[in-house]
Amino acid sequence: MALYITGHKIPDSDSICSAIAVAYLKNTLGIEAVACKQGDINPETRFILEKFGFDEPITKTSYARCDTFITDTTDLALCPDDILDANVVGVVDHHKLGDLTTSSPLEAWIRPVGCSNTIVKEMFDYYGVSIPKNLAGIMTCAILSDTVIFKSPTCTKEDTKAVKELAKIAGIDNPKELGMEMFKIKSAVLGSSIRELVMRDFKDFNMSGTKVGIGQLEVVDLSIFDNMKDELLKDLETLRVEGDRNSVLLLLTDIMKEGSELLISSLDISKIEKAFDKKSVDSKMWLDGVLSRKKQVVPFLEKVFK
Amino acid sequence: MALYITGHKIPDSDSICSAIAVAYLKNTLGIEAVACKQGDINPETRFILEKFGFDEPITKTSYARCDTFITDTTDLALCPDDILDANVVGVVDHHKLGDLTTSSPLEAWIRPVGCSNTIVKEMFDYYGVSIPKNLAGIMTCAILSDTVIFKSPTCTKEDTKAVKELAKIAGIDNPKELGMEMFKIKSAVLGSSIRELVMRDFKDFNMSGTKVGIGQLEVVDLSIFDNMKDELLKDLETLRVEGDRNSVLLLLTDIMKEGSELLISSLDISKIEKAFDKKSVDSKMWLDGVLSRKKQVVPFLEKVFK
Repeated sequence: MALYITGHKIPDSDSICSAIAVAYLKNTLGIEAVACKQGDINPETRFILEKFGFDEPITKTSYARCDTFITDTTDLALCPDDILDANVVGVVDHHKLGDLTTSSPLEAWIRPVGCSNTIVKEMFDYYGVSIPKNLAGIMTCAILSDTVIFKSPTCTKEDTKAVKELAKIAGIDNPKELGMEMFKIKSAVLGSSIRELVMRDFKDFNMSGTKVGIGQLEVVDLSIFDNMKDELLKDLETLRVEGDRNSVLLLLTDIMKEGSELLISSLDISKIEKAFDKKSVDSKMWLDGVLSRKKQVVPFLEKVFK
Repeated sequence: MALYITGHKIPDSDSICSAIAVAYLKNTLGIEAVACKQGDINPETRFILEKFGFDEPITKTSYARCDTFITDTTDLALCPDDILDANVVGVVDHHKLGDLTTSSPLEAWIRPVGCSNTIVKEMFDYYGVSIPKNLAGIMTCAILSDTVIFKSPTCTKEDTKAVKELAKIAGIDNPKELGMEMFKIKSAVLGSSIRELVMRDFKDFNMSGTKVGIGQLEVVDLSIFDNMKDELLKDLETLRVEGDRNSVLLLLTDIMKEGSELLISSLDISKIEKAFDKKSVDSKMWLDGVLSRKKQVVPFLEKVFK
């Protein structure tokens, strides 16, 4: 039986590209492996896969009794629903240690870096397996995406080093330029419904028993949302009630201005205000310098919900 | 503030030696680090530390607000009681992924190998830090202990390779001979109380909400327990009631005959019998070929308590 490699629910470029890369590595090491996804890919990821000639991973949502390798999360809420019935043999991740548990010893490659693909690069180096040109291309893009072209506070020297080495293999002369091209694709909102925008990069968090959903849209110019915020806020409210969540937040991140506008639907907005020590105006607040959900948003919310 | 490195409760040689080794590595990398222990060391570990000229790590049981690195476990039950209030920056382990969670991204080095020190060796190699002779000595001993001198089914080619390289650095010509010397120390029961013997290598497990304690004594000749089994069984019963456990088991492992006698105190001994598909006689059963608690005992109990 093959080993299935999958990233988290509502896949982003890091989770898709890391699944493809780990599957390639395992196959090269003689372990039959299949890259999977848990849901539809976003426009940015589609751009990346098309640019370097990759098919989308297969969609697979049930993993019971399957040998499984998880990329880019160890949170049960983001893993397949039946993951505790799977045989999880490995994980690679760059987030805090979540509540996934396993019934057997496993390999876990977790590092406090900006992107899972940076760690997957380390895995290739460890095994002495060379990375094909096109694979290096999608790994480069994933790191540029997760680190917001090196601007995110989550970006480490390991990430910039990995991009340098991978871009060289991929023959990418100017990674920053490629990053900007990618973020322009990512900024496209035309043709997407309001719900599609909210869900494009959405994660549910269990904060000491409180369910908080946080979406993020990273764009090169925030003004494209100017006529959309009321609709977005209304949909956050709907989503909060539908999913029995305490709060649903949406980060509208301007990667050029380097900050985020936070849209809020919450049963207790004072908690959100306390987390960021800032008053909201019409359920919105500007967070200067905030680019990273993981490092600049989640920890402060976790503190107030503790 | 220094980084504190600690292994699990009721420390064994792997958890003590890995804490010392990780502390050395971190200090070499410029991070002030202190090796700690959560309780008294056992006679085998004392022998190892004395042989290679190491002091015992300091005893530290509270880690709230401390930068902390955990070795040889990710189970909350085996971590310091206040570990969720600590800032866990790293773990190294070779067991199944437990229920420890963190509030920040961390480094996790987890591999399905026979000993945490094998993975610590990998960490030194990753950073290109050379291992001093005496440190290589205690790391060798820890691997020989955890893999029962390579006999345990948990032993992998990574473990034998690590011992080969570490023993060379340490100037140990015959690791197996050193292993036997160590297991003779480990076999010593004279001078220890019954409770001390039961607790020497004891771990509590949370099996789907059921508390099961499992001790293990590895000896070169099981006959030393011949006149002790009634007393041991009686103490298992006391320990079970005291700790509000469903079951307390003690593995008396004969590393030469390569098998274990299981002593049982349980609220439901039929579950234990079902786990090993074997009838008990006077609360005892012989498990042929069983050397590893982790690989040959815990998974089968977890299955029946699910």
